Amino acid sequence: MSFNQDYANVANAFIGHYYSLFDVPDGAARAQGLSDLYDPDNSYMTFEGQQARGRAAILEKFTTLGFTTIQRAITVIDSQPLYDGSIQVMVLGQLKTDEDPINPFSQVFILRPNNQGSFFIGNEIFRLSLHNN
Amino acid sequence: MSFNQDYANVANAFIGHYYSLFDVPDGAARAQGLSDLYDPDNSYMTFEGQQARGRAAILEKFTTLGFTTIQRAITVIDSQPLYDGSIQVMVLGQLKTDEDPINPFSQVFILRPNNQGSFFIGNEIFRLSLHNN
Repeated sequence: MSFNQDYANVANAFIGHYYSLFDVPDGAARAQGLSDLYDPDNSYMTFEGQQARGRAAILEKFTTLGFTTIQRAITVIDSQPLYDGSIQVMVLGQLKTDEDPINPFSQVFILRPNNQGSFFIGNEIFRLSLHNN
Repeated sequence: MSFNQDYANVANAFIGHYYSLFDVPDGAARAQGLSDLYDPDNSYMTFEGQQARGRAAILEKFTTLGFTTIQRAITVIDSQPLYDGSIQVMVLGQLKTDEDPINPFSQVFILRPNNQGSFFIGNEIFRLSLHNN
């Protein structure tokens, strides 16, 4: 058992960092920026029900999202420590891509400690709340 | 590494079981039904931003929610395996308590394997999406 008592600070800093890398117009730049956050083999990411495992598959998905501009507003960040030193983060917010309507989204991450005193994304799930309202 | 490849079946069965125990009118019955799902010390539950740790604190929160009737509709369940055999589950849905309006909610669970070949809730976060639309 090693619950990370600094979980809220880590989670909040991570979310700002992640979205600053994600919310760029160019898909290749997005993939390059996010690359270090995923494990080559053991990261899972589910985007609108489509699951990808491993860095290459995840970044390929993020490269081909097909929007040019994105605006995002975060409503709330909830976080918790896990028994193994990981941190769970749930984000609720709204986003607007190109000329599409503003849509609410829900996203969850498991941040796992790496050997360099930092964290990578072990698990991630993203959903627009299109049909949830 | 021991990713549980049956994660989706476990997640879907868990969610049906959990809400059947949660969605009862009597707070004491709710707490009794859910009791076995939480570790006495190391389960975390954050409800609308209020964090509780350990079975007793979590069940106390669930005993005092103050509604008489609850209706729930699940929009989508996403799940993933974690490296240690745990399973992450994200639920989006809608609920209605008593005469309140229907509200969307987001909820996430980490299901951890116990020694009896079953699972308990290591981590749980719940949010109504009141301010996310």
